[in-house]
Amino acid sequence: MSIPSKVQLIDVGPRDGLQNEKTPVPAEVKIGLVQRLQEAGLREIEVTSYVSPKWVPQMADNHEVMAGIARQAGVRYSVLTPNLKGYEAAVLDQPDEIVVFGSASEAFSQKNINCSIAESIERFAPVVEAALAAGIRVRGAMSCTVGCPYEGEIAPGRVEYLAGLLKGIGVQRVDVADTIGVGTPRKVQRAIEATLRHFAIDDVSGHFHDTYGQALSNTLAALELGVWNYQSSVAGLGGCPYAKGATGNVATEDLVYMLHGMGIETGIDLDRLIDAGAYISGFLERKPNSRAAVALLNKRAG
Amino acid sequence: MSIPSKVQLIDVGPRDGLQNEKTPVPAEVKIGLVQRLQEAGLREIEVTSYVSPKWVPQMADNHEVMAGIARQAGVRYSVLTPNLKGYEAAVLDQPDEIVVFGSASEAFSQKNINCSIAESIERFAPVVEAALAAGIRVRGAMSCTVGCPYEGEIAPGRVEYLAGLLKGIGVQRVDVADTIGVGTPRKVQRAIEATLRHFAIDDVSGHFHDTYGQALSNTLAALELGVWNYQSSVAGLGGCPYAKGATGNVATEDLVYMLHGMGIETGIDLDRLIDAGAYISGFLERKPNSRAAVALLNKRAG
Repeated sequence: MSIPSKVQLIDVGPRDGLQNEKTPVPAEVKIGLVQRLQEAGLREIEVTSYVSPKWVPQMADNHEVMAGIARQAGVRYSVLTPNLKGYEAAVLDQPDEIVVFGSASEAFSQKNINCSIAESIERFAPVVEAALAAGIRVRGAMSCTVGCPYEGEIAPGRVEYLAGLLKGIGVQRVDVADTIGVGTPRKVQRAIEATLRHFAIDDVSGHFHDTYGQALSNTLAALELGVWNYQSSVAGLGGCPYAKGATGNVATEDLVYMLHGMGIETGIDLDRLIDAGAYISGFLERKPNSRAAVALLNKRAG
Repeated sequence: MSIPSKVQLIDVGPRDGLQNEKTPVPAEVKIGLVQRLQEAGLREIEVTSYVSPKWVPQMADNHEVMAGIARQAGVRYSVLTPNLKGYEAAVLDQPDEIVVFGSASEAFSQKNINCSIAESIERFAPVVEAALAAGIRVRGAMSCTVGCPYEGEIAPGRVEYLAGLLKGIGVQRVDVADTIGVGTPRKVQRAIEATLRHFAIDDVSGHFHDTYGQALSNTLAALELGVWNYQSSVAGLGGCPYAKGATGNVATEDLVYMLHGMGIETGIDLDRLIDAGAYISGFLERKPNSRAAVALLNKRAG
């Protein structure tokens, strides 16, 4: 398999990133971030979620944010929907894609959403059905595909099982997420190979956390399998809820730096992406959690 | 080429790392660091340099440090020698290996040591000759093999040229260093391939900086060419003199985490390595500049 010449990135910063930030971020800043991301060339942006504000107060402004963004043709705006109630709220805002989720780890599923993997997928079935009937695309986020904070290492067979369940309810594409960032190249490849038993290569995206500094080497390993869709978070927004003070989502800037250095097209303007990251990092009063961004911002400062 | 099943690491933290730290580190702390590194299983340690204290005051205690370390059988202790005077001082301390250096970039050579690449190698010829005659091994550090802070991108032909000059004066093995961390997987592979025209695979080591977050993906790319010797710095000691506040040497912890995750043997005990990094980071009053170390220390703290 030769390495893809083109990669599509989904920036999950506004949702997966900001959801894990302690500082409350007003809707207008989120809207400003989405604007800067699309100006930087991002063609897929995960904007918000429709989870109860009791659990995720950070996303309580979902309607306001979705109404406020200046949608651009050719950009796909996705939102996370945890259940039918969330979907019904989301559909009012006309997302291009909804995201449902499942864990490859039973223990994580139980602790996180209080039901088994099979039950969680069953609950999502009517959500997926409704979305597809309404012409909305459906993505499935598979968490803990390499390791779990409760169970430790996850066997590829568990990933295959989860991918099969998601395929079974009509999910169109899936993310192979290393939620706690413990993956290394070969393990990540095995999780992807397990996913490929149910989904075509074009419908599989890599979602690697940089908690242990492994996200880019895992991306290289995934590229070598032909995976050309990846998720990342501008300025490395998000942190890691399972390891205080540690890094979470890989920074979009680091990923783009690598891809461009390898001659792989992303359609992204790295300079404008750095601007987007500097904008939200400025609001959060810290440096971007991205080595490439810090190095390039230093270079700009001269 | 299949990925090597065993990797040998050279920890350059005591020399290349501490040389770039602003906080003065007393000899006894350096000795304590070397001790902890060998206890963690490191079999090659770059201990100090014999550069004029006018230029590098951080290494003025070279004799004291070399006299103070409790040498362990099977561990190779290397030192940097910039010229014959430095070599003559070094030889009193009986290093196992000396390190000479050259840049693949003419501009860097001029700015850094005020002479051309060819002249710099010529000056090293008597040093190499003396070392080999004394039964001391000689390693050549090749800087700027991918990019240069003054010239920008470096063509692989320049690396081949430098490698040829080093081979010509009797250097036994070489480091392919990405001094400013701008390299990405394919570019690094081209620099290594250029080096392999003059040195056997067993005599080539990768030395990647993490300034742009690329060091581990570059390591994976080098592993795929069969390179099984790498340099790194415990706790990511060193920073980057060309980009203030940016990361320098890849952290040994991050590298070991990846290698072990891939089932590659290093002989290193990651827990004790974390201890070594925590020791020096504690002295420097900061967190280790290693994502794996921070995540694992958080995990320990519970």
